[in-house]
Amino acid sequence: MLRHLRDGGPRSRAGIAMDTGLNKATVSSLVSELAELGLAREGDLERAGAVGRPGKIVELDGRRVGGIGVEINVDYLSALALDLTNAVLFEQRVALDVQALTIDKVLDAAADLTARALRECGRLNVVPAGVTIAIPALVDVAAGVVAFAPNLRWRDVAVVKGLVDRLTARLGSPAFPIRMANDANLAALGEYAMGSVAGTPDLVYLTGEIGVGGGVIAGGRLLSGAEGFSGEIGHIQLDPGGRQCGCGRRGCWETLVGMAAMLRLAAEPGDPVHDPSLDLEQRLDMIRRRAAVGDRRTLAALGQVGTGLGVGASILINVFNPRVVVLGGYFAQLGPYLLAPMMAELKSRVIAPDIGGCRVELSWLGFSAASRGGAHVALEAVLDDPALVALPGPAKERHSG
Amino acid sequence: MLRHLRDGGPRSRAGIAMDTGLNKATVSSLVSELAELGLAREGDLERAGAVGRPGKIVELDGRRVGGIGVEINVDYLSALALDLTNAVLFEQRVALDVQALTIDKVLDAAADLTARALRECGRLNVVPAGVTIAIPALVDVAAGVVAFAPNLRWRDVAVVKGLVDRLTARLGSPAFPIRMANDANLAALGEYAMGSVAGTPDLVYLTGEIGVGGGVIAGGRLLSGAEGFSGEIGHIQLDPGGRQCGCGRRGCWETLVGMAAMLRLAAEPGDPVHDPSLDLEQRLDMIRRRAAVGDRRTLAALGQVGTGLGVGASILINVFNPRVVVLGGYFAQLGPYLLAPMMAELKSRVIAPDIGGCRVELSWLGFSAASRGGAHVALEAVLDDPALVALPGPAKERHSG
Repeated sequence: MLRHLRDGGPRSRAGIAMDTGLNKATVSSLVSELAELGLAREGDLERAGAVGRPGKIVELDGRRVGGIGVEINVDYLSALALDLTNAVLFEQRVALDVQALTIDKVLDAAADLTARALRECGRLNVVPAGVTIAIPALVDVAAGVVAFAPNLRWRDVAVVKGLVDRLTARLGSPAFPIRMANDANLAALGEYAMGSVAGTPDLVYLTGEIGVGGGVIAGGRLLSGAEGFSGEIGHIQLDPGGRQCGCGRRGCWETLVGMAAMLRLAAEPGDPVHDPSLDLEQRLDMIRRRAAVGDRRTLAALGQVGTGLGVGASILINVFNPRVVVLGGYFAQLGPYLLAPMMAELKSRVIAPDIGGCRVELSWLGFSAASRGGAHVALEAVLDDPALVALPGPAKERHSG
Repeated sequence: MLRHLRDGGPRSRAGIAMDTGLNKATVSSLVSELAELGLAREGDLERAGAVGRPGKIVELDGRRVGGIGVEINVDYLSALALDLTNAVLFEQRVALDVQALTIDKVLDAAADLTARALRECGRLNVVPAGVTIAIPALVDVAAGVVAFAPNLRWRDVAVVKGLVDRLTARLGSPAFPIRMANDANLAALGEYAMGSVAGTPDLVYLTGEIGVGGGVIAGGRLLSGAEGFSGEIGHIQLDPGGRQCGCGRRGCWETLVGMAAMLRLAAEPGDPVHDPSLDLEQRLDMIRRRAAVGDRRTLAALGQVGTGLGVGASILINVFNPRVVVLGGYFAQLGPYLLAPMMAELKSRVIAPDIGGCRVELSWLGFSAASRGGAHVALEAVLDDPALVALPGPAKERHSG
């Protein structure tokens, strides 16, 4: 019923009964329960010229519940909290050179940032429904373990347990579930739920981070694969004689178009764009300014990356025939310089006429897509099981915000 | 309810009512209607120690309805008819050098073969529920048009209309739908419905014909893409400096592992294995016998193809994380010589541990997978709408078979 209220908007009890096929007594009791949990409320009289006695309308009270996404990436950590209306309650990104740190230090920092997001939720009187960790890795979702993260150089790391233990030490045992999933898969869900192409049922999401990640929505569902390992597109070999990749192989797609490759092509070692202690956006702003003033090396690097993007994306378009390819991460930020060479490759390489009706779009969500997707996944769980949200105080007070 | 009877097996009217949530009166009237259409019948008393009055059991009468798949491929045509129990009622393959013939001649031959299958259904007192054409092409399914078939050298051909017109001229206007879809997508559906890995929800099907086709079942559903053009895996570029492909590009996967490539590697021009007037199985038998006696050139060719299979399949496994890769077409026939080099490539190229839990299997359905999938699709339509089967005679006679 919550899902119904979110997707269909506010309506009367009678309207809910009609739409869901539940009888009115059941609807009334469900509405009361949801109101108790702070998830729904009854508002103004319905104004439409409806037949019969006017009823109060029931609406989702999405502002009392928060979902939190925490991203662990190669050179940053971020956390983002959303309420059920998808409003951002908290967002923070910190630069962090993960490869230079021990796993313990990284998890400490992730726990600090997560605790900050949770405290902010508390301050806003929002109940956390769950935390989802987004990570550029092959993730054993059921076990909460990173099987392999080439660019973090992690193998078999029990990240969920590590975070739970640290949060418990900081704030007491968490009363909500903590999950983990591949960052690009979560980002694809974020785009599908609230990005510029939200609701497009056949969608390929490509993100340029230090590596390259992908997530695919096919027929309105995230492809996850038999063991949750689908979407490992960064390691498609495009150049057998190419550079060594973090995964140990040679010439993977990400060695051609990942952010590390782009920066290497664009600037000498020692150039500040390589400095992992600077925030990512600042470093990309430098690249963008150089491109804007016509710096040759920068433009050549971006042209080369755009071509490489097209070569790899043509494979995915031939395989998936998506309606749209969404470019996220740094691809979105530098998109204007990447699109023309990318499209030229797609036009010559995709076998279907007119690229199979596919267009390429730049993400609006940028580097927040994965943490948004994580927050979204945490909130979806509440729609399936409202009892996840066990509120502490009386309902009345909670409605005063 | 038909789908229920097929998937759940025979049961009493009361059992059906309980399982489906329909009331008994509705079930009784549905059973009568289905019996009228010859799709269900009531049989022996239920024997289990059930409480209450024993009822007759209702079962699917799958033997009165046929689905027909017709495959148009580069060097053969085939037709296959199945009843609802998946028993084969008719199967025939004819060698045909499609590239050497006009489109009209090919459609004439396809209509002749389809008419033969339909006449055999008539002889068996089976009502045709539909015909599905399987073709190695980008298919505009809604329009019934081949948009592009590189290996047939067809573009924008209205195949469905061509077949309907010809069948009308031969047998009168067909009373059933005629559809068309990509051959490898239909073959994937055939494997999923009745192959050795039937029911495996994450499955990649690869078929070696003259070209290479692919179909993907993800989460139990066929991937079709935004415009039905998904699965164009034969044109993944693996060797930028490679041979020219039928699609006009260079070094596509099928230039390395398609049957044309395998035969070229295995035998000089003029060798009888190249003769398109011989049946495919005979030509492949020659190759298999040469391999069995240790012919060096044959073994080297098969080793090279197996390696190429692994290189391309590793991309699909990284992208999809399937539970199983099924090798069909000639890959299945020569599988024992292809598997070892293929697995070696998969082990070194797939990024997930243990190839993401994926195994490789050889199809049991061989060259019939696509036409079986086509017949299956025609029959599925009956399960959705039993009224598709408007039987001519009285129900009693039809039960005498």
